Amino acid sequence: MKKLINAPDDVVVEALGGIKAAHPSLDVDVEAKVITRAGGATAGKVGLVSGGGSGHEPLHGGFVGFGMLDAACPGEVFTSPVPDQMLIATQKVDGGAGVLHIVKNYTGDVLNFQMAAELAGDEGIEVVPVVINDDVAVQDSLYTAGRRGTGATVFVEKIAGAAAEQQLDLKSVADVAREVNERSRSFGVALTACTTPAVGTPGFDLPNDEIELGVGIHGEPGRERGPMRPVAEIAEVTVDAIDDDMSLSGSELLVMVNGMGATPLVELYVAFNDVARILSAKGATIARSLVGNYITSLDMAGLSVTVLRLTPDLTRLWDAPVETPALRWGR
Amino acid sequence: MKKLINAPDDVVVEALGGIKAAHPSLDVDVEAKVITRAGGATAGKVGLVSGGGSGHEPLHGGFVGFGMLDAACPGEVFTSPVPDQMLIATQKVDGGAGVLHIVKNYTGDVLNFQMAAELAGDEGIEVVPVVINDDVAVQDSLYTAGRRGTGATVFVEKIAGAAAEQQLDLKSVADVAREVNERSRSFGVALTACTTPAVGTPGFDLPNDEIELGVGIHGEPGRERGPMRPVAEIAEVTVDAIDDDMSLSGSELLVMVNGMGATPLVELYVAFNDVARILSAKGATIARSLVGNYITSLDMAGLSVTVLRLTPDLTRLWDAPVETPALRWGR
Repeated sequence: MKKLINAPDDVVVEALGGIKAAHPSLDVDVEAKVITRAGGATAGKVGLVSGGGSGHEPLHGGFVGFGMLDAACPGEVFTSPVPDQMLIATQKVDGGAGVLHIVKNYTGDVLNFQMAAELAGDEGIEVVPVVINDDVAVQDSLYTAGRRGTGATVFVEKIAGAAAEQQLDLKSVADVAREVNERSRSFGVALTACTTPAVGTPGFDLPNDEIELGVGIHGEPGRERGPMRPVAEIAEVTVDAIDDDMSLSGSELLVMVNGMGATPLVELYVAFNDVARILSAKGATIARSLVGNYITSLDMAGLSVTVLRLTPDLTRLWDAPVETPALRWGR
Repeated sequence: MKKLINAPDDVVVEALGGIKAAHPSLDVDVEAKVITRAGGATAGKVGLVSGGGSGHEPLHGGFVGFGMLDAACPGEVFTSPVPDQMLIATQKVDGGAGVLHIVKNYTGDVLNFQMAAELAGDEGIEVVPVVINDDVAVQDSLYTAGRRGTGATVFVEKIAGAAAEQQLDLKSVADVAREVNERSRSFGVALTACTTPAVGTPGFDLPNDEIELGVGIHGEPGRERGPMRPVAEIAEVTVDAIDDDMSLSGSELLVMVNGMGATPLVELYVAFNDVARILSAKGATIARSLVGNYITSLDMAGLSVTVLRLTPDLTRLWDAPVETPALRWGR
């Protein structure tokens, strides 16, 4: 294992130290492992909290800021944050309008966020959870009952974040978040396994001539192991898997081609070229797009594709200003 | 070799197709291999052109847009673009105020940009070249006479881009670009070699327990091969190499911790934590920062650190609005 770390146990705390040093727009409580906006809670605005295991950066800490999250709580690598972290985050961002918990559908995350919501409720903070489950690859997996939550999390955080910024109430922001989740689908492919610092060896064996189709963001097994092939064929399997689950014909899409962490950007653009061609052939239009590393899996090579069937309202919210370390556009 | 590509010869053209499909803010001439702003030349503004071998994305195409470059010409992977590309780019962005060529110091780039400048001059377009040579690792290298141009290119493109946007004349924009280059230093470290699509095997052998200190962005040899070590020690070697060349004590710095392409963001933040601590111990202040993949080397794992000793004017230009695919902040 060759990693830019000091000790496996210190990775998350030291990364938080780095985030704190790099981003004055964020308030990083390294001890509590909670990242919030430097300005604190916004009075009258629904607070947005997300979190999950570390190793998926920039998710979630890189999405804290105007127009997106109010707080992120990173767990240890590939490990759910604890309810106390989530409670502290919830308290910090409560501006009197309630708090939305954006929860990727992994068993530990769901249970811990549920406990945090109850604790916050005891203190009089209204919390609504929205569970993200956009991955079409498998029904249940190693970490999940039901579908896994993956790339749609980025879309939900952005779009619900815009809705909250526009002072929509908690129920309405939660409805928007659910709508985005319901209209989104993802599928991932791994070329290599990832290595957690604590373990030090790849999480699974993937021969040099094989790829994992439908892989999860922790390297969980997908639908099948198959031979390595040109990216045009990988893109086809990926888009077909999504289209089989949610027909894309006639849709205006937000499309993300996301790198898993160790994939060069030039390859993601080659992949986007194929994804765009295939979507067009299916009668779908790419109205908005993202290409880059947004929800990663440590040093895994590979990609995931996430699509959202836009509506005019969702497009407007997507286009609304955002100012976070990892996603920014004009206000 | 496992890459998300179709055929090695088609990587650059297909990536340009992907960039075209993903970024309506850009005008991508796939045949000529030239990326410009969708709006074309800005009348009265100095045009900024950069370019170089592909494989360093988002450099340079990802930096085309308001407040930064007017055009980028990508060569084949790790291969200089040809003079014709640079000439077309120069013609496209000439708004009557002349054109700045931002050239990384590699022999092929320097010669070809020089030829393009002469051809443009024959057509009555005034061109001033600025050569970037910020890498302190080695004096000469495989691809370069003199120091290599690396991370400072990002700073020059941003800051000279802001100066041009403010309607400074060609000489003044070139002066700003040279000032940024002269006040910047870089040093890179590779944990793994990178593999070009055309070759298919790593460009050099790096044993599992060794790293290359002072590596170039094409995997050129650095100062020395040494044992793998904690990132705190890597950060120390890196910052010391820079500080030995240009004393940092008392400076206000713009600091970039840049991933080489296959390094997870969480590791870059761990590295930034150490870099920040070491810089502080040297009496320097981090006034601005960038953490992420900005000038990469395909699938190389590793990092580079680039620092710029800011002045109030340079800070103001750094903070000026920018709107490109890879670097954006508010206008």
